[in-house]
Amino acid sequence: MRVTSRPLEDLEGWELHTDSGRIRHASGRFFSVGGIEVDMPGAEVPRWAQPVIHQPETGILGILVKRFAGVVHLLMQAKSEPGNRGGFQFSPTVQATRSNFTGVHRGRAVPYIDRFLDAAPDQVVADVRQSEQGTWFVRKHNRNMIVEAADDVEVIDGFVWLTLGQVHRLLAEDNLVNMDARTVLACLPFSGPELGALLGDGRGFRGALVRSCLPEPCPLHTTGEILGWISRVRSMIEVNVSPVPLWGLRGWRWEGGRISHEHGRHFDVIGARVRARGREVAGWDQPMIAARGVGTVAFVATRIQGVLHVLVRTRIEPGYADVAELGPTVQCGPVRGGRRTPPFLREVLGAPAGRIRFDTVLSEEGGRFFHTRNRYMVVEAAPGEVSEAPGFRWVTLHQLSGLVRHSHYLNIEARTLMACLHSLAARL
Amino acid sequence: MRVTSRPLEDLEGWELHTDSGRIRHASGRFFSVGGIEVDMPGAEVPRWAQPVIHQPETGILGILVKRFAGVVHLLMQAKSEPGNRGGFQFSPTVQATRSNFTGVHRGRAVPYIDRFLDAAPDQVVADVRQSEQGTWFVRKHNRNMIVEAADDVEVIDGFVWLTLGQVHRLLAEDNLVNMDARTVLACLPFSGPELGALLGDGRGFRGALVRSCLPEPCPLHTTGEILGWISRVRSMIEVNVSPVPLWGLRGWRWEGGRISHEHGRHFDVIGARVRARGREVAGWDQPMIAARGVGTVAFVATRIQGVLHVLVRTRIEPGYADVAELGPTVQCGPVRGGRRTPPFLREVLGAPAGRIRFDTVLSEEGGRFFHTRNRYMVVEAAPGEVSEAPGFRWVTLHQLSGLVRHSHYLNIEARTLMACLHSLAARL
Repeated sequence: MRVTSRPLEDLEGWELHTDSGRIRHASGRFFSVGGIEVDMPGAEVPRWAQPVIHQPETGILGILVKRFAGVVHLLMQAKSEPGNRGGFQFSPTVQATRSNFTGVHRGRAVPYIDRFLDAAPDQVVADVRQSEQGTWFVRKHNRNMIVEAADDVEVIDGFVWLTLGQVHRLLAEDNLVNMDARTVLACLPFSGPELGALLGDGRGFRGALVRSCLPEPCPLHTTGEILGWISRVRSMIEVNVSPVPLWGLRGWRWEGGRISHEHGRHFDVIGARVRARGREVAGWDQPMIAARGVGTVAFVATRIQGVLHVLVRTRIEPGYADVAELGPTVQCGPVRGGRRTPPFLREVLGAPAGRIRFDTVLSEEGGRFFHTRNRYMVVEAAPGEVSEAPGFRWVTLHQLSGLVRHSHYLNIEARTLMACLHSLAARL
Repeated sequence: MRVTSRPLEDLEGWELHTDSGRIRHASGRFFSVGGIEVDMPGAEVPRWAQPVIHQPETGILGILVKRFAGVVHLLMQAKSEPGNRGGFQFSPTVQATRSNFTGVHRGRAVPYIDRFLDAAPDQVVADVRQSEQGTWFVRKHNRNMIVEAADDVEVIDGFVWLTLGQVHRLLAEDNLVNMDARTVLACLPFSGPELGALLGDGRGFRGALVRSCLPEPCPLHTTGEILGWISRVRSMIEVNVSPVPLWGLRGWRWEGGRISHEHGRHFDVIGARVRARGREVAGWDQPMIAARGVGTVAFVATRIQGVLHVLVRTRIEPGYADVAELGPTVQCGPVRGGRRTPPFLREVLGAPAGRIRFDTVLSEEGGRFFHTRNRYMVVEAAPGEVSEAPGFRWVTLHQLSGLVRHSHYLNIEARTLMACLHSLAARL
């Protein structure tokens, strides 16, 4: 796959649509890039404008699983995306927009899609719509599915069965497991007897983590308290998002074929020309979002009564369907001089090596984001060292697994970290 | 409280607002009445227009509870509403729109509101936003709260402590417990040891019902299956709702100061003049919705392995925030000649007296709906007599209690029936 830069105004098949104020595909489908004005009375930044991606379709991100000799295997796809840095990444079995599988692409059919669309209820391990980045998308969500195959599955070119353990080990490598795979992995039910068996060495970080995944331990806050907390934030905070034309956004400049923040912050909207083999179509143009620099996404964790808790934060992003979702302790772009440092960022970046439990650079979705990566970290604080600031709560992994069965409680960054923590719990 | 009819065009303080195409309050607040066009490809009625109420504020419906000598009491308000037939009904401690408690009314403050706005997390028994009628409101929801008081509570005029048992008995009387009280009651956690103790007589309908409320019994479908079912419906069904002006709605006539369906079906939008004592303000005008005739809302229930299951149905209503919610087995207005009978209505209305477990006429919210009532019923079918039709699933009461901890799974009609079933389980 070869990707070259191309001015936004010259993208083939895309038009500057005056009525909607967006760059959109000439067919009116796929996705479009527009502007929003955000009004959050009382917030640190109470008012701003920005470009966003509109993609109202609900796609499917699905992983097919199958037991071979009792061991769970996942059918992963080695997939290149235009925004990937350095080639393919492991992706779900199916990663398809609705347009893909209803055939607007007029490309080849989506392999294995019928396994998800026609799955019998008792084959469905998980099926839940989850949000994507609320700072870059407006109300985008995808259906995250895990389906278990009982019959033989033909493995076609570009797909491979990996054990859950193999996928977990790959997660520790930079840019190898893509965002769509990570969010589906987070939805995999993760407890039960096989995990309890791991408790053999009940001490240390890993013992505390495994206990955190099990239903029994008593969390610091009941799940009712956590639900009430989210409900209160969603009821009391007001977020007004108004669509505005992409051109003339306050604080942004459209120059040199791209849209950039006037102070070079946040991200750019760029145009890309893609030439590919082995895809539904041989080539295409598209707009993409390119973040400025590598961000930091981290959970601060600590042991409370021997059970690992992670510090979640209510995050309000303009693109969320329902005001707020729970996010990681830290989630921010590169912090430069003169800007206020987000809470706990210093603790995370300054943690001694022995306290860093996970530290990998992972890519955001390469179909929409160009070379956009975050450093995902889990840092353990000594018991009592870090206390809950307003807007933060300690929760167990089991509580997160309970929440992720429902839509729109955990943001995509928190879900990636869940998958990372599960990989640490299960690693033998 | 005296309510007289008044033409929609002549309501004092209200205006026909040309830009929005709505009747709205001159202050721009409270609520407005507009039109929508609904497009549901593939539905039985794939396209229609109708009037709706827009009320984007999230209000609070709250019941204060307190244990006296170990017995749970609820602080209920005897409240008259303009739409009530025959005077006051038992209402929650607080039933307030955001405008009420932020003072736009310029009336007296809402009693007890601080108990809810300032409740400490460990006093909050329930706090969840729940939808209201998706056929009459656009995306309206209220925060349903139950807060337990530990200190002394001054009981002011018009309020009374009732035991849960008393409230349950009142539910069996026509038009005595209002809609807002019923939806909050449905959110009261309902299981635990005190209920298990009732299992003494484990046989018959009541034994099966009590078992249905407890966590242990194995439901016909796992909760994961039920969640997957809802997710699938929400992902696959397309509902497009477009706002249109209230005037000129296809299929509706604005004549004689009211808006009516051209065949006299569904409901009317009427104007009302209210004169009241003991309210925040002494009098006001407002538009209201008046349903045509008394509807039927019913659960068909049956015992499966000795555990009562109720037959829920996925309902798609244009005003829901998220496409579909679970509703009762039957939910319909009066059925007249020539119209197709909804599934299971015949079974419900033709059930022998010995099979009818609950049968009471209850009012919808009297602040917006004029003399609008439904006959709420629970009818028990013999085991194996009724099977799941497409779009229907058997679930236990405990599963419903699990769902009602989250927003937008159970519609308001199903929540009323939950409260009714709880009243049957707990009645001594």
